[in-house]
Amino acid sequence: MESTSILLEANDIPTHWYNIAADLPKPLAPPLGSDGQPAKPEQLEAIFPAAIIEQEMSTERWIAIPQEVREIYRLWRPSPLVRAVRLEKALGTPAKLFFKYEGVSPAGSHKPNSAVPQAYYNHQAGIKRLSTDTGAGQWGSSIALAGQMFGLEVRVYMVRVSYEQKPYRRLMMQTWGAEVYASPSTMTETGRHALADNPDNPGSLGLAISEAVEEAAARADTNYSLGSVLNHVVLHQSIIGLEAKKQFEKIGLYPDVIIGPCGGGSSFGGIAFPFLGDKAAGDKRAENLRCIAVEPTSCPSLTKGIYAYDYGDASGFTPAMMMYTLGHDFMPPGIHAGGLRYHGASPLISMLHHERQIEAVAVPQLATFEAGILFARSEGIIPAPESCHAIRTAIDEALKCKETGEAKVILFNLTGHGHFDMTSFERYFSGELNDYHYPDEAVRESLTHLPKFD
Amino acid sequence: MESTSILLEANDIPTHWYNIAADLPKPLAPPLGSDGQPAKPEQLEAIFPAAIIEQEMSTERWIAIPQEVREIYRLWRPSPLVRAVRLEKALGTPAKLFFKYEGVSPAGSHKPNSAVPQAYYNHQAGIKRLSTDTGAGQWGSSIALAGQMFGLEVRVYMVRVSYEQKPYRRLMMQTWGAEVYASPSTMTETGRHALADNPDNPGSLGLAISEAVEEAAARADTNYSLGSVLNHVVLHQSIIGLEAKKQFEKIGLYPDVIIGPCGGGSSFGGIAFPFLGDKAAGDKRAENLRCIAVEPTSCPSLTKGIYAYDYGDASGFTPAMMMYTLGHDFMPPGIHAGGLRYHGASPLISMLHHERQIEAVAVPQLATFEAGILFARSEGIIPAPESCHAIRTAIDEALKCKETGEAKVILFNLTGHGHFDMTSFERYFSGELNDYHYPDEAVRESLTHLPKFD
Repeated sequence: MESTSILLEANDIPTHWYNIAADLPKPLAPPLGSDGQPAKPEQLEAIFPAAIIEQEMSTERWIAIPQEVREIYRLWRPSPLVRAVRLEKALGTPAKLFFKYEGVSPAGSHKPNSAVPQAYYNHQAGIKRLSTDTGAGQWGSSIALAGQMFGLEVRVYMVRVSYEQKPYRRLMMQTWGAEVYASPSTMTETGRHALADNPDNPGSLGLAISEAVEEAAARADTNYSLGSVLNHVVLHQSIIGLEAKKQFEKIGLYPDVIIGPCGGGSSFGGIAFPFLGDKAAGDKRAENLRCIAVEPTSCPSLTKGIYAYDYGDASGFTPAMMMYTLGHDFMPPGIHAGGLRYHGASPLISMLHHERQIEAVAVPQLATFEAGILFARSEGIIPAPESCHAIRTAIDEALKCKETGEAKVILFNLTGHGHFDMTSFERYFSGELNDYHYPDEAVRESLTHLPKFD
Repeated sequence: MESTSILLEANDIPTHWYNIAADLPKPLAPPLGSDGQPAKPEQLEAIFPAAIIEQEMSTERWIAIPQEVREIYRLWRPSPLVRAVRLEKALGTPAKLFFKYEGVSPAGSHKPNSAVPQAYYNHQAGIKRLSTDTGAGQWGSSIALAGQMFGLEVRVYMVRVSYEQKPYRRLMMQTWGAEVYASPSTMTETGRHALADNPDNPGSLGLAISEAVEEAAARADTNYSLGSVLNHVVLHQSIIGLEAKKQFEKIGLYPDVIIGPCGGGSSFGGIAFPFLGDKAAGDKRAENLRCIAVEPTSCPSLTKGIYAYDYGDASGFTPAMMMYTLGHDFMPPGIHAGGLRYHGASPLISMLHHERQIEAVAVPQLATFEAGILFARSEGIIPAPESCHAIRTAIDEALKCKETGEAKVILFNLTGHGHFDMTSFERYFSGELNDYHYPDEAVRESLTHLPKFD
């Protein structure tokens, strides 16, 4: 009986991350401080350890993964590459559909791939505590897990409305020993100020970031951790694509199309960039490779945004980055793929999209749940709403193959399971969910707020 | 870097289940009908297919696993055998701790190991629908998944109080296409009668079983499925131990101690019996093997029950089985390991305990959560409350090794993850959980209700 799961041993866990900054068509535009000048590494030292800052700036192609990090990765990595034979049959497609399953991590998604090295480098730098923000809880739970592995205390500022509506993710963080506060909290100046204005403030990711950064900046023993967008996070996620390459080598195939959901973009970069590295190196197999970032029609930064300098956060605290953006104060509707509700996209993803090295599509919410349920009924695994976006586009590509008769090899990133998102499925089944499309008027408004430098 | 996960390929999925009925010290006492005579296979034909009834009665040592079943098993099997190196370090034990992780199934536990063949044999017999009961939802979700794989309609009667308190499990079943009704329901005579008596009836597993059996008995296109206790369920679960044997062979080790949680007993039999089969065959490596069934102090059927004929269900509908029992109407307290709240134990487990082939221990609730949290913080995976019982005893055995200096090989069954049980952890953290010990008075009462045959 043929294996549908292509497995690797612990020894096959890559020894180096792949850094696409070495293979870009031109250098990345630098982040800019409020004075319009390139931000200096020193400005980040209050909240990040030196090793992370170095990775953020590096253009080295291969960066060694510390052995201590590989030993934690080993708890769930290498993750399986799975051929979705039952889904292929359900679709009647000649395409070969493969998914890389990142839901096998204890936190249930790809996020620990970066949380673990971030915790490690902070531990190495003598840091005792990490502070971070979390919306629905995916990143917070990953940092809680990773902090526990290196004996770091972890404090998570969780957006109040999620804190109250999603107790399971909060409990997961507490099980791994983290302190979790509803944000705005009374722990920080920012939080106290927000509560003084409005004691019932439901919180926002922008506020939670501000609280976590304020704490990290104020305490010498504490640093801050971010779960997407930045170069070092995309670097860490390259483990996904590097493993997938080894797995395809094992079965003598190479993908024609790579598909991943795209919010901040770290998991998409993680699966696609190592293959784009082959293309940059002139590998014939990658010559016609297509990489498709999938975003929601409600928050289509790559497909409807503009390529410009904008802030990484809603409040404008971060340096400005050159990226596709809908405007940093664009507020996407409350869709269930919380991980894709980001106004911009990683500068690396943005540049490669601008240079036409990758493609992007936007898909409406209902079609993603429909695809996720077909997947669950075929392959068993119940996918996270974010992952349903990749499944939707993978199915669409497989159906095109059915028309053309092409037996393309399609790889998609199953970034996580939906065990903590079952209420989203409930709302889908009960007909309460809607398709939101990007409101043109609102963007025109939010795009007038881009940073202006003298 | 040494692998801590011992992996197998799809081709290594066993081709036959192991049936310990071939290797018992004496024949199993037959189930008895209400007339005190051995129940006849024909009596089961209204609710089970012939292949299942045959397996229930069989004393063949090896029973072939249909290829169609292996192809579904392949979606998550072979499950990993993992060396818990970080837990060993945390304990400072010379013991080698291994766990077989059954939480990798789409339903998150070992239950699909039997749900899949049950759905398959019913499909083969021309059955179009399955009805079943579920308490917290582990079995219901496994049958929903398995039914979907063979195109069977599935109706689940879910105890009303769980239906309302545990919406995530219900949603999982619906995602896999099952109909889920709160029991008592208006769909059956039993349900309507219960609701007429009390419209606010919270339901019970006994009632839900009655509804599911009533429906299966009344409809020619519908059969019933049971998730533990019976011989054929234990048979299907032997896949766990058979794979573990192959995995230990791969690394040249053999377990000295095998530990599993024990409610009805199918997962415990599943992991332990294939090794006991070695012992029966005179395998020297198994000569001193200890197999320990772990139950809660609140529901200690093996450690405080008596070995006698009793009904399998609370209401006395089933044939009487020779087993360890606390009395079929003993009502265990509402502990969080719902899967271990069973008044009896599988006849196979019971006989082997009576014959001193296996051991049993009872552990209090708080100590199981403490063990589960240490495990989560060491190995990452958040375990189900049932699995925490095995972890507790595995830790206790490892700590004994620390005292004696013995490097024993300890295998425990990590039967499932706790993603749908996070509220139990919340109650533990908030100090709301108690240790319940078996109330001697109550059992004296419930043991006066054992069936009496003329």
